[in-house]
Amino acid sequence: MTADLLATLRAASSPLLDAARERDGADPLAALRARFALPDGVYLDGNSLGAMPATATAAMQAAMTRGWADGLIRSWNAEGWHMLPVTVGDRLAALMGAAPSEVLVCDSTSVNLYKTFCAAMAMRPGRRGVISERNNFPTDVHILQGAIRGRFPEARLDLAEDDDASVLGLLSADTAVVCLSHVNYRTGRLRDMTAVTKAAHEAGALVIWDLAHSLGALPVDLGAARADFAVGCTYKYLNAGPGGPAWLYVAARHLEAAATPLTGWQGHAAPFAFDIDFSPAETIEKFRCGTPPVLSYIPLMESLSVFEATTIEAIRDKSLALTAFFIELADERLARHGLTVITPRDGSQRGSQVALTHDDGWPIMQALIASGVIGDFRAPDILRFGFTPLYVSFEDAALAVLALERIMETGLWREPRFAEKKLVT
Amino acid sequence: MTADLLATLRAASSPLLDAARERDGADPLAALRARFALPDGVYLDGNSLGAMPATATAAMQAAMTRGWADGLIRSWNAEGWHMLPVTVGDRLAALMGAAPSEVLVCDSTSVNLYKTFCAAMAMRPGRRGVISERNNFPTDVHILQGAIRGRFPEARLDLAEDDDASVLGLLSADTAVVCLSHVNYRTGRLRDMTAVTKAAHEAGALVIWDLAHSLGALPVDLGAARADFAVGCTYKYLNAGPGGPAWLYVAARHLEAAATPLTGWQGHAAPFAFDIDFSPAETIEKFRCGTPPVLSYIPLMESLSVFEATTIEAIRDKSLALTAFFIELADERLARHGLTVITPRDGSQRGSQVALTHDDGWPIMQALIASGVIGDFRAPDILRFGFTPLYVSFEDAALAVLALERIMETGLWREPRFAEKKLVT
Repeated sequence: MTADLLATLRAASSPLLDAARERDGADPLAALRARFALPDGVYLDGNSLGAMPATATAAMQAAMTRGWADGLIRSWNAEGWHMLPVTVGDRLAALMGAAPSEVLVCDSTSVNLYKTFCAAMAMRPGRRGVISERNNFPTDVHILQGAIRGRFPEARLDLAEDDDASVLGLLSADTAVVCLSHVNYRTGRLRDMTAVTKAAHEAGALVIWDLAHSLGALPVDLGAARADFAVGCTYKYLNAGPGGPAWLYVAARHLEAAATPLTGWQGHAAPFAFDIDFSPAETIEKFRCGTPPVLSYIPLMESLSVFEATTIEAIRDKSLALTAFFIELADERLARHGLTVITPRDGSQRGSQVALTHDDGWPIMQALIASGVIGDFRAPDILRFGFTPLYVSFEDAALAVLALERIMETGLWREPRFAEKKLVT
Repeated sequence: MTADLLATLRAASSPLLDAARERDGADPLAALRARFALPDGVYLDGNSLGAMPATATAAMQAAMTRGWADGLIRSWNAEGWHMLPVTVGDRLAALMGAAPSEVLVCDSTSVNLYKTFCAAMAMRPGRRGVISERNNFPTDVHILQGAIRGRFPEARLDLAEDDDASVLGLLSADTAVVCLSHVNYRTGRLRDMTAVTKAAHEAGALVIWDLAHSLGALPVDLGAARADFAVGCTYKYLNAGPGGPAWLYVAARHLEAAATPLTGWQGHAAPFAFDIDFSPAETIEKFRCGTPPVLSYIPLMESLSVFEATTIEAIRDKSLALTAFFIELADERLARHGLTVITPRDGSQRGSQVALTHDDGWPIMQALIASGVIGDFRAPDILRFGFTPLYVSFEDAALAVLALERIMETGLWREPRFAEKKLVT
């Protein structure tokens, strides 16, 4: 049945689907869905890889044909290629409450975390405490572990639990840097950025926020929160495509003191003077390193144009409505099958994803994907569903619950083919 | 006149052009030119940014439409996205005398140099000497400077001159790591990789080769030279497009001992187990860091298909013939105008570019570009011309000399508009 399940559900008369479609009819963001090239089926994994902006292919063709093939090296100036890390950063800044010149689009989130962490540690000499969280996205903790081993061997890494109180309980006069995810990648729990940052500052520490799972899904105001540093990717809610360029934020007040450990030529004050001694730029460009991957910026710019056609507040409103709707349906129809909602029911503590747990989460998710509803699985037992308000509908949310309910009722997920492991989960 | 100069020169009767065209007629690689999308005019800057493979746009469209828009996260498995750093690395390995699993395509050259330098330094504990070269491409020295300051504060960086003897003269029992460019980015001088590596090993040091200006232009055999580490980019002779992904090489014998400082999740032994403690992969994948920029690999794969249609020896033969032809013409026609060849006349010491010097190099190069012949300028006084044998013809070389001769004869370059500086040179 799998391939036909979604079509069957869609075609069937259903008060639930009628109600969902009615909400879609009243959705002020509904028209933005047409600005994405969406696959058949229901896509609830935009929190892992965002959908493609419909204009991205034409923009990429133009960049390749006009910029690369015809313009060649002249395009570094004529097409503004050289300054893309800054100009695209300025556009991204608007989504995070940052000022222009505080955001740089470059490298990967992991590399940018290394840069900002090393910079922050050097700004708190003598302090040895580093705080992160046990259930952080692994790369954040991995990067800290490697940086501590190689550069700050006297530092000590403490891992907090999911609640903010646990973080605050670890703060001390010895804390140098706190590095946290704004929204947890598994549970979808949202931290109180302002409160945690304030407490860290009172202890004399600096804070690095990882916004990979929040930026583009909800309002972020790094300026109001007095954040010190932040990093994140662009391929989730920001729809820049697989492995799109990441970004970093350095509060303007720290730009003079913060030093990058990755002193590549593009961070030089005058890269095209070809001086052999490194002398950092005075601006956010000091955190550049190598040559920017120009073509990777193209889809991101198309996606930002969609964001610029609405407001992050409207996006948040729809996000909260979608996730509340999904949670309500999950409680009604899936809880009895052992699928438990672990995402906070309090919207103020919730990102834009909903996580369910089940011991057989892996085969259940594979059966769901085979039926045309794409979510993903995160070890050990989490089924994740991302609600990307620019292109996900209430009908999508309802269909996902109906499909999952049918899979649990029929026991479809027990078929051996769904137990097969994959390289990337 | 500028815009018409090239057309005038092309149309004029000229024994020199006839001779050049005759050589093109006998060129076994001539047919490969059609596999690139070339602009009007003469392009001699493929040593900075290679031309676009003609199939790159269609391949990119397919990757975006089929892989991203339709496949979405499924493509990490179904399209082989997750393993691109390894699978493309294996194809690239064939061009550098490396075994499969010794090359990883990822990040930027600068970031990869940081990784390999930190790894190499940690393999020579107690030694404090680092050797590079005064006229190296700046980012190489900048990265070493930053890494020494942050991680190896007791190390000392010595900068050799251009000749290999100068490097050898700096070697001592205290030398930990030697980091050199195979071909100099300004002069085009080629180092003797085997001899320098052997001498460094005799002193107990490890060697990192930067192949940014040689790979794809001439035969490289890292295995035969017993090289330890190497790094390079793919957007010059390898035609991967602006900011295409870089690569790194770790000799198989060092894979166990070498440790990356950038411990991102993709370098974990089991990234999708989401363990919070970093445990490196046992393979070259330990040097992965963040999520790979998938779309950036697409044009590189198209370019590698062109390389796979010929041999690097045939490419080298044509490269030496092109550069010798250009040098001969420059001596005949340009020396009298104060343009001096500084690239070695001995082919065994020459990469695939020719550099001329002139105190007014900047405006002269701008006038040449305006006339339709693209080379570039490198401070303080160098005019660079890259000869990329896959798509540059003998006619291109002859036209460039004729255009430059005319510009010097007429004094066109003295027009004020050519003095204007640009952001990127």
